[in-house]
Amino acid sequence: MRNTIDHIRLEDGDRSLVILDQSLLPGKKEYVKLTGAPEMFRAIQTLQVRGAPAIGIFTGFALYVLARRSDAADAEALCREAERNADYLVSSRPTAVNLSWAARRIVRAARSAAPEGREAVLSKMQEESQAILDEDIAMCTAISEYGLSLLSDGCGVLTHCNAGPIATSRYGTAIGPMILGRERGYQFHVYADETRPLLQGARLTCWELSNAGVDVTLICDNMASMVMKQGKVQFCFVGCDRIAANGDTANKIGTSGVAILANYYKIPFFVLGPSSTVDLATPDGSAIRIELRDGEEIRSKWYKEPMAPECVPCYNPAFDVTDHRLISGIITEKGICRPPYSESLRRLSRE
Amino acid sequence: MRNTIDHIRLEDGDRSLVILDQSLLPGKKEYVKLTGAPEMFRAIQTLQVRGAPAIGIFTGFALYVLARRSDAADAEALCREAERNADYLVSSRPTAVNLSWAARRIVRAARSAAPEGREAVLSKMQEESQAILDEDIAMCTAISEYGLSLLSDGCGVLTHCNAGPIATSRYGTAIGPMILGRERGYQFHVYADETRPLLQGARLTCWELSNAGVDVTLICDNMASMVMKQGKVQFCFVGCDRIAANGDTANKIGTSGVAILANYYKIPFFVLGPSSTVDLATPDGSAIRIELRDGEEIRSKWYKEPMAPECVPCYNPAFDVTDHRLISGIITEKGICRPPYSESLRRLSRE
Repeated sequence: MRNTIDHIRLEDGDRSLVILDQSLLPGKKEYVKLTGAPEMFRAIQTLQVRGAPAIGIFTGFALYVLARRSDAADAEALCREAERNADYLVSSRPTAVNLSWAARRIVRAARSAAPEGREAVLSKMQEESQAILDEDIAMCTAISEYGLSLLSDGCGVLTHCNAGPIATSRYGTAIGPMILGRERGYQFHVYADETRPLLQGARLTCWELSNAGVDVTLICDNMASMVMKQGKVQFCFVGCDRIAANGDTANKIGTSGVAILANYYKIPFFVLGPSSTVDLATPDGSAIRIELRDGEEIRSKWYKEPMAPECVPCYNPAFDVTDHRLISGIITEKGICRPPYSESLRRLSRE
Repeated sequence: MRNTIDHIRLEDGDRSLVILDQSLLPGKKEYVKLTGAPEMFRAIQTLQVRGAPAIGIFTGFALYVLARRSDAADAEALCREAERNADYLVSSRPTAVNLSWAARRIVRAARSAAPEGREAVLSKMQEESQAILDEDIAMCTAISEYGLSLLSDGCGVLTHCNAGPIATSRYGTAIGPMILGRERGYQFHVYADETRPLLQGARLTCWELSNAGVDVTLICDNMASMVMKQGKVQFCFVGCDRIAANGDTANKIGTSGVAILANYYKIPFFVLGPSSTVDLATPDGSAIRIELRDGEEIRSKWYKEPMAPECVPCYNPAFDVTDHRLISGIITEKGICRPPYSESLRRLSRE
């Protein structure tokens, strides 16, 4: 039987992609049905779907749905179209490595089946997109197990942004250990940074952890120093969008600040993510391109009225890079990498 | 001629206190007229008036206005009433040392004039509240001069929360050097932390700096690490609510995080404030009581709809304490104190 998940799923005989609109949570739990490439592009760009692994799963199914709906007459035309769609979707968020990784994977699969004809291409794309989901479920479960192995019952964990079930397939990465642990009867105290400007921590992490019965307290990003100082937190667990060969890690803006604070207070700081997030072709963090987003996200997006004078410029980078020297370990589905990362990450990719 | 300021001023023959409602900025510039103690209490508590020095000035005028409106038959009754009003106003915000400092000062002045009768008490209270304002203007100007002496034209300064003109009398403390510098033809690049949850940085600092023609860029609190890493900032200037004898400094929540980041990136971190903020009776930061505020400020206050599930607990401390070891210098109207603060602050208070 096929694995399925509720928040990214095929419908209408695989001719539609239905997703939970994460941009409306926690106020509204609404699903949107996507059938065309521009809607899919927009879904990624406007964060209706977000979280590196979820974007990968989404991209696989999206390319498959577009192929299923295509009028392309033969296998060759279908593959060319899949390539165009892949390039288009990849351009929606330049920093997310899982997006291009999944797109390349689907295109390669399609190409491999082309000699056998149009139907074989479709069936191969279906298989491959399903495989991305199945592997993610296995990955998240393994990551959660490794993370859980570090925690003792009752301890405090600080997390930033959202790397939970809806950012992945199941459990999630950064908060997976606490959700898996809860299933087994453990309880942890999670401090969730609200994560300005898009508030993924407040809107999504708190929602997911509450749903899972995990004890969670919401704080503003600038309160992390205080809860660390008060001894409320024994671990920091964060997700990742791209890990360079030396261990430098791009993740949601603010992550590097959390890592510096954790370092100062001598609290272990762990990055959790699938090994596909490791990008050995990127030597270090300086080579990671950082997406700059609209200042209105800071100034006015959620508010009843603008919270800063309209004339004031905003600087709104979506990610930052955490120096590998601040990271205690990188937890992937293959185990826990420790410094020096230039060696442990290379070993990991050979496995 | 009396010094007057626009944002805290006497009207109606000193029988009303008119203030700029800071809680409505930058959307609305509205003044409120206060005549009774409960309104004045509420003005402090709801941050219609805020900023340690401004609260001091406000408290002086508030007690004077209440005395001017009083029915108390004689000097003794008037003084007793002033004491009751002082205790009441002081209870509105326990962390703000300038509040109790100004209240004690007015009560003492009233008491000193009591032997000369009712009119003498009123006149002494008027004099003393005016003196608090006059001294604050002189203080802010001196603090701004000392701060400006550290800066070179064109450099970048990061600030947190709001310690500008409306938080004081003129110029302000933390952003005073840049405003004074602008008057003299210098230009600086200020990065203003928005300062969650109450957004004083976005709402007030950006508004004040723009008004003064200073180049300001708004960032979320969690972006400070990135702008520091990029070399955009050569100094951090912050205000203070209470400075303990050893230099530990209570200021707006998030300040300690900025200090830790600045320390990591080797950027000088300065605290600016009047010497009245130094509290030698408090040996160190652990003795400073921290006000906890309502979680709704995090979850829903400014938003079109709540941004976190209603059931989720929030932790909302209004201040944190920055360890003295992270502070490069404390700039007061009497000069720049350097470590060790246990000595330099004691010397300061003897001057």
